[in-house]
Amino acid sequence: MIRFGLIGYGYWGPNIARNIQALDSAQVAAICDKSDASLQRAGRAHPGTLVTNDCNELLSSPDIDAIAVVTPVWTHYELAKQALLNGKHIFVEKPFTSTARQAEELIELAERKNLTVMVDHTFLFTGAVRKIRQLIDDGTLGKLYYYDSMRVNLGLFQHDIDVLWDLAPHDLSIVDYLVGQKPEAVVATGASHLNGLSDVAFMTIYYPDNVIAHINVNWLSPVKVRMTLIGGEKKMLVWNDLEADEKVKVYDKGVNVRGREGVYDLLVSYRSGDMWSPKVEGTEALKAEMAYFADCVMSGQRPFNDGQAGLRVVELLEAADQSLKRKGEAVYA
Amino acid sequence: MIRFGLIGYGYWGPNIARNIQALDSAQVAAICDKSDASLQRAGRAHPGTLVTNDCNELLSSPDIDAIAVVTPVWTHYELAKQALLNGKHIFVEKPFTSTARQAEELIELAERKNLTVMVDHTFLFTGAVRKIRQLIDDGTLGKLYYYDSMRVNLGLFQHDIDVLWDLAPHDLSIVDYLVGQKPEAVVATGASHLNGLSDVAFMTIYYPDNVIAHINVNWLSPVKVRMTLIGGEKKMLVWNDLEADEKVKVYDKGVNVRGREGVYDLLVSYRSGDMWSPKVEGTEALKAEMAYFADCVMSGQRPFNDGQAGLRVVELLEAADQSLKRKGEAVYA
Amino acid sequence: MIRFGLIGYGYWGPNIARNIQALDSAQVAAICDKSDASLQRAGRAHPGTLVTNDCNELLSSPDIDAIAVVTPVWTHYELAKQALLNGKHIFVEKPFTSTARQAEELIELAERKNLTVMVDHTFLFTGAVRKIRQLIDDGTLGKLYYYDSMRVNLGLFQHDIDVLWDLAPHDLSIVDYLVGQKPEAVVATGASHLNGLSDVAFMTIYYPDNVIAHINVNWLSPVKVRMTLIGGEKKMLVWNDLEADEKVKVYDKGVNVRGREGVYDLLVSYRSGDMWSPKVEGTEALKAEMAYFADCVMSGQRPFNDGQAGLRVVELLEAADQSLKRKGEAVYA
Amino acid sequence: MIRFGLIGYGYWGPNIARNIQALDSAQVAAICDKSDASLQRAGRAHPGTLVTNDCNELLSSPDIDAIAVVTPVWTHYELAKQALLNGKHIFVEKPFTSTARQAEELIELAERKNLTVMVDHTFLFTGAVRKIRQLIDDGTLGKLYYYDSMRVNLGLFQHDIDVLWDLAPHDLSIVDYLVGQKPEAVVATGASHLNGLSDVAFMTIYYPDNVIAHINVNWLSPVKVRMTLIGGEKKMLVWNDLEADEKVKVYDKGVNVRGREGVYDLLVSYRSGDMWSPKVEGTEALKAEMAYFADCVMSGQRPFNDGQAGLRVVELLEAADQSLKRKGEAVYA
Repeated sequence: MIRFGLIGYGYWGPNIARNIQALDSAQVAAICDKSDASLQRAGRAHPGTLVTNDCNELLSSPDIDAIAVVTPVWTHYELAKQALLNGKHIFVEKPFTSTARQAEELIELAERKNLTVMVDHTFLFTGAVRKIRQLIDDGTLGKLYYYDSMRVNLGLFQHDIDVLWDLAPHDLSIVDYLVGQKPEAVVATGASHLNGLSDVAFMTIYYPDNVIAHINVNWLSPVKVRMTLIGGEKKMLVWNDLEADEKVKVYDKGVNVRGREGVYDLLVSYRSGDMWSPKVEGTEALKAEMAYFADCVMSGQRPFNDGQAGLRVVELLEAADQSLKRKGEAVYA
Repeated sequence: MIRFGLIGYGYWGPNIARNIQALDSAQVAAICDKSDASLQRAGRAHPGTLVTNDCNELLSSPDIDAIAVVTPVWTHYELAKQALLNGKHIFVEKPFTSTARQAEELIELAERKNLTVMVDHTFLFTGAVRKIRQLIDDGTLGKLYYYDSMRVNLGLFQHDIDVLWDLAPHDLSIVDYLVGQKPEAVVATGASHLNGLSDVAFMTIYYPDNVIAHINVNWLSPVKVRMTLIGGEKKMLVWNDLEADEKVKVYDKGVNVRGREGVYDLLVSYRSGDMWSPKVEGTEALKAEMAYFADCVMSGQRPFNDGQAGLRVVELLEAADQSLKRKGEAVYA
Repeated sequence: MIRFGLIGYGYWGPNIARNIQALDSAQVAAICDKSDASLQRAGRAHPGTLVTNDCNELLSSPDIDAIAVVTPVWTHYELAKQALLNGKHIFVEKPFTSTARQAEELIELAERKNLTVMVDHTFLFTGAVRKIRQLIDDGTLGKLYYYDSMRVNLGLFQHDIDVLWDLAPHDLSIVDYLVGQKPEAVVATGASHLNGLSDVAFMTIYYPDNVIAHINVNWLSPVKVRMTLIGGEKKMLVWNDLEADEKVKVYDKGVNVRGREGVYDLLVSYRSGDMWSPKVEGTEALKAEMAYFADCVMSGQRPFNDGQAGLRVVELLEAADQSLKRKGEAVYA
Repeated sequence: MIRFGLIGYGYWGPNIARNIQALDSAQVAAICDKSDASLQRAGRAHPGTLVTNDCNELLSSPDIDAIAVVTPVWTHYELAKQALLNGKHIFVEKPFTSTARQAEELIELAERKNLTVMVDHTFLFTGAVRKIRQLIDDGTLGKLYYYDSMRVNLGLFQHDIDVLWDLAPHDLSIVDYLVGQKPEAVVATGASHLNGLSDVAFMTIYYPDNVIAHINVNWLSPVKVRMTLIGGEKKMLVWNDLEADEKVKVYDKGVNVRGREGVYDLLVSYRSGDMWSPKVEGTEALKAEMAYFADCVMSGQRPFNDGQAGLRVVELLEAADQSLKRKGEAVYA
């Protein structure tokens, strides 16, 4: 039974708390938030759990095994470090830290103290992403061509991070999980219209073997779109996360270029067959992730979404920051 | 009555011919194509019209007032030049030419000989784009924030141009028409998977005042998407060109950042009101464009989609070429 | 402060309980269910609330002002009657009762004892139905032509009622609310494929002045559909309840028949203008309904979704039963 | 080579003509229409073809093998009869005739003179309907449960027939083709709002073994819908004819009722697996149908969409007429 101290009970914290409570292997022992209103909500939802404004109560409590850090990004490093120094395992909201340097330090510290670090890359626990990974692993898609994601909606504007740091980590963690290779270069463009931070941004990531990823994030879209195209040599798929059912559609479509006839005529054949929408597990991703965290802590197994995974995402974000400042100049890994 | 010589009767040529024939102010006098099969199709569809393999017959014929050049891009310059030298007005398929240099030369030549040049930016004559322009001009959208277009499908692979030169001219001509400002910088990324030419590409165009345009083109998509988001200070819109009705939806949505409270709390308000889909003219854009060309020739009026408009699109494509080669390095205007 | 006794904590009961608890004007004092598992869930969700297997504890308790009956239909009459006899106000799940005779008896009893009866016609409290009613009341739609609803999905099969009694009450209560007239005749058809009760059924209701309603319900549909078309002389609308936004779309479309020219040519003009999707309140309907119940009890005001409204729906269901048995023979009011 | 005389060049006639001309096995020898404007259009589209106001020219011409009757329903019988008496094969627009009596007479006459009769049930030649038939024939769907079709749009109002006679023949011919059994009873309801003929109508057809068909047709719908649900014991499908691709989606969904536990608990299990959209032939149905007609005439083979198939649809329409007049009273076969 892993006893959690949860720091941060704003938008996402209540979901973490609820899903921990739903497990047999874990429980929320204490909740901390700066806001009294949030603490009151926490108290009503989790009667009997300690609620406090002082995060040191959690960080130093001998009754707590693990700290869930669900606060703004700029606070992650300090809270996670204190938790590790106090011998607590950590579960940290994405993105892991504000800089790659901080991430490296936390990884090293956790290693030294033999503690588990997990970064909350929730999407990796959804039925859709698991199914897509399976379709890649079993060769259904064939050699990967591209990953192209559109993740746009109205708001929510953040005061400390731009739209890339807010929305792109989802896709960056997914691409990292699906492609499994080190990126070669990152290009980012974007614009800011309201508070000085980019609210519209586009990111291209070059991988070896002509694999390319593209991520379109936008806080100023009138409609919510969560659509990803993934192209492979044998099959192509569309993942529409807003569909209630049929989130993933696999198309038996492809192109074959067989050379040229004379100088001008390209010999191309197009294949267009059936479409197939595999059933995708509908269980709540966050619950599976929290159970996995508890398992990892108890077994000592290193999670696949560990500090290194978190670091890789932060490195891409830092590269994107640089590229965006230089109007798209490629930043090499 | 403008008598047209049409060069190129492949995919798009028949549409040009049909729409010219539907006008009272114009007619197709002769059709030329290299392929005998195409000429046979032309002959069946336009009985009584001269069909020939030899384009010089058209270019030098005293019975012909204007030449429509509907051939692959790399042939535009030579054909258009001959037509102008022979005193014919020209209607040229998009993109205008293979290089900006060629476009400038044609513009100069036409000016000298007082001939009309029109570039086939068909989308500017659709009800949807006209309505969007009107919504910008009358202030409905407010200050423009961004233009973000996704134009993807399976194929058709070209042997001489990549996916940017094939699909992006549509959006480039539309953005040029809607924004009406000189771009500051262009960034392009992409990848090639089959025939050495980019088949997946992304393009960002920076305009003054933080206006940003983004274009996503792809020949390897399992699904056809034609979706454009346009954000403005007062309203935002979605243009889905694949919808039979309701192509344009205008959202009374917006964001207002009123500053900060203390260091951490951003004061943001979101407005979310009605959606409204204005009726959009359903008449065939190409017919309106051909009628406009005939009008311009007869009246001597300079078309708004003239050689200069064609040149601006070619300049953006050349800039994109350069940027793409340097992996996204910004190319400045 | 209205103290509720809730009988029935299966699928819908927890929603009723949660929404009562969210009010300042009401609270759940006790929960009863036959199933121990349900009672355990109730206990966890509402710590401190009395939970019991014995509904008489609730029905006779002096601490309870109102009974919410959220049990299978065939039990409504007996439970509601006991509640009224014990001086409790009642809130009864739809459909109100198994027979019109039972409904009339409950209405009479409540009247005699001056108690409030409300039937849970939740949809009447949604933003969509309120907006539609408003569009009718303010003359936007013009004279009503028809109401046509499709409400289909896979399951849930009931053991005691067929698909008409399960799904049609939603539409019947909405039509009753929107049309506000006494129906003239009812026709129902359907078929049973699995357990002897109709799982696919269709119902037509004739109202005065050629207003017609049609309801399509189906437990054997592979997809979930919740779509209603409403035609009026001036405007027509589509209500798609599965849309996250834009649930109601109003079309400026219409037909005008101006007579004939000669014998054969009908002079018809079609109007097709803008489409408009009014913003619809997104607040939870059930919460508004429970607050309204508490208000009605405290003020003595008679709710519009009272026993009479419940009776009208039951009468239509009884008529449909008869018609269905006679393969569509009209049953007159 | 079958030489056609085409009578009626209004909305559908041009499509018939174009598709005959596209065949090697047939040609349009003459076109007749009452309207001079229609004849002019015919002349422009088919230069060299005889056009005339006088249908007797076609009916009596020795150069014509077959007459295509593409006129209003009430004229079918007389024109078809004259054609048969003159020894011409006939291709007749749906619905075949105004009464079953007329259809029987034409069938008998054609039999006597050994001439081919085909009724234009175009949908039976679409890739979608052929695929659905195949899924039934090969047992994929399992025992059929229901066919439920929604076919609604704005207009086109007819002066001589109501919405049932206009739109329902499509579904009636499809159901006849898919179910392949004699219907037991027909129930129809509807209402008229503008010109005295039903513009909104609903039809239920009872088949043996609890197979039920339902057809919803409407000339007063703000949106165009062409959606059919088909339920079977093993699989269920949705056919959305307005989808560009993926018109047919097959769902591995089902319900199994295994009896009851005690009195109240129904033991039901729901199966919900993958969805699969088979590729459907995209060739023009009408072209395939015209080629089939030419084949049948030349080979003497009796078409499956013969006069008997046309008669069965007319019988259902007559039954629907009667039922609609009696407000849904079942009319038995």
